[in-house]
Amino acid sequence: MAIIEAIPNVSEGRRPEIVERLAGALRSTPGVRLLDYSSDASHNRSVFTLVGDRGAVKSAILALFDAALAAVDLRTHQGEHPRVGAVDVVPLVPIEGVTMNECIALAKEIGSVVAERFNVPIYLYEEAASSPARRNLEDIRRGEFEGLAAKMAKAGWAPDFGPARPHETAGASVIGARMPLIAYNINLNTERIDVAKKIAAAIRFSGGGFRYVKAMGVKVDDRNLAQVSMNLTNHEKTPIFRVFELVKREAARYGVSILESEIVGLVPSAALVSAAEFYLQLERFSGEQVLETRLRAAE
Amino acid sequence: MAIIEAIPNVSEGRRPEIVERLAGALRSTPGVRLLDYSSDASHNRSVFTLVGDRGAVKSAILALFDAALAAVDLRTHQGEHPRVGAVDVVPLVPIEGVTMNECIALAKEIGSVVAERFNVPIYLYEEAASSPARRNLEDIRRGEFEGLAAKMAKAGWAPDFGPARPHETAGASVIGARMPLIAYNINLNTERIDVAKKIAAAIRFSGGGFRYVKAMGVKVDDRNLAQVSMNLTNHEKTPIFRVFELVKREAARYGVSILESEIVGLVPSAALVSAAEFYLQLERFSGEQVLETRLRAAE
Repeated sequence: MAIIEAIPNVSEGRRPEIVERLAGALRSTPGVRLLDYSSDASHNRSVFTLVGDRGAVKSAILALFDAALAAVDLRTHQGEHPRVGAVDVVPLVPIEGVTMNECIALAKEIGSVVAERFNVPIYLYEEAASSPARRNLEDIRRGEFEGLAAKMAKAGWAPDFGPARPHETAGASVIGARMPLIAYNINLNTERIDVAKKIAAAIRFSGGGFRYVKAMGVKVDDRNLAQVSMNLTNHEKTPIFRVFELVKREAARYGVSILESEIVGLVPSAALVSAAEFYLQLERFSGEQVLETRLRAAE
Repeated sequence: MAIIEAIPNVSEGRRPEIVERLAGALRSTPGVRLLDYSSDASHNRSVFTLVGDRGAVKSAILALFDAALAAVDLRTHQGEHPRVGAVDVVPLVPIEGVTMNECIALAKEIGSVVAERFNVPIYLYEEAASSPARRNLEDIRRGEFEGLAAKMAKAGWAPDFGPARPHETAGASVIGARMPLIAYNINLNTERIDVAKKIAAAIRFSGGGFRYVKAMGVKVDDRNLAQVSMNLTNHEKTPIFRVFELVKREAARYGVSILESEIVGLVPSAALVSAAEFYLQLERFSGEQVLETRLRAAE
């Protein structure tokens, strides 16, 4: 059975009754399991994590648009997190029994229906992007809702689906497909934030480091520790163990060691299994040997 | 949902039509998934791997006894592998949503029904054993089918269920509960079997090593390599990474390094995840963060 994960981000994080209504719209869609949702009041934003097959995910996202557009008005929305739409961004992630190409196709299908049914302009991003300039969410979102009308009037910023002007209250939505993202932090055995910043600069893509790593050096406030805080955007091509080992090596150059690392939120089993394969020097190993994978395959 | 794995071993590995009939008896039991089965002609033995909940596993094992007792006559059975019964041994393994104690209870329940319905004496072993002397399969099986009548007449060898004499054609059966067993080999960067034997002796329980490790030093015939060949009988208490690291350290004492390791057959996800946790120094990590685990929990 195909399992696709969707992580819609909605620009509402302060009214619990609205968030519950949105969660309810997802939860009540047949074939959908709502795994998690959380709201941030200062961001005024909620993030939902759901899984299902193609049809179920499509129905759930349409139901979410229906509920969110009735409740969110970006003209009066304020919050710290950048946003361009009421349903701001909808990434689709292939989990099991489904390819990236199928997730890209689903993103386009959902985008096309949303544009037609709700009159909301749609930008496709990441793997579903129609051009390299639209791969990065930050580029699409720059200017936010308030600058959207002017931006959409510029050459090159016509949406992939829907009208070439923002929806009055719901702006535009960004829909796409990507690999699962792993939020991964490494805490260093030091208080020196400058060391964490130097390591982050060395290992991230923008600094010449690994292609699928975003990183910054920060302070762990309550513990007086320096942290390399990362997003790993493709754990198959830039695996977690390789990032860990490089951070360890770079830290040693400053006489610093790794205190611990942590994964924030969910992680695909394969990302951890590949670390075990690396460190245990496993040869002739296949994911089919993992008992739980065999169980699901037999379902 | 409770998932229990059963790995019945049957004393028939030369007549494919019989093996197919036994597989069919398991496969056609409602709620059972037959994950794997294989036969060894020189051992004259077949091993079946199936999963299901309590009721399904019980029904499947009873169906297997029914089919095996009709087809196997130990009086004429020959093979290299030691055996005491037609259905020689049935380990039950807790996989998910079920405790070891529940598997022990199920082993007793199945043993009691088999003894009554088929008049086959039953010995409980491993975690289900009624005394320490019966924990080890080897101890129960010593003397094999041919020596069984004499053994059962001795003090201390009355079965846990059923008559105090062997079944005429089917001997006795050993049923129990245990943790999943991991067949794990480490190949050394040397031809020296003596080094593999010394390491094996140092790390195994019987030599004063880890409690849940059985190990021997062997030669990998077709590659001219020395191998430490192991069974890890409780990966929670003696984890795979700790065994790997100790073998590496012991090998270094002889100037030898690890070439590679391999897992033969199936491995529970948790055994690999714990290795990732160790090497990545993961803190505040819970199995609930593994996406696939969350998916199954939501089912």
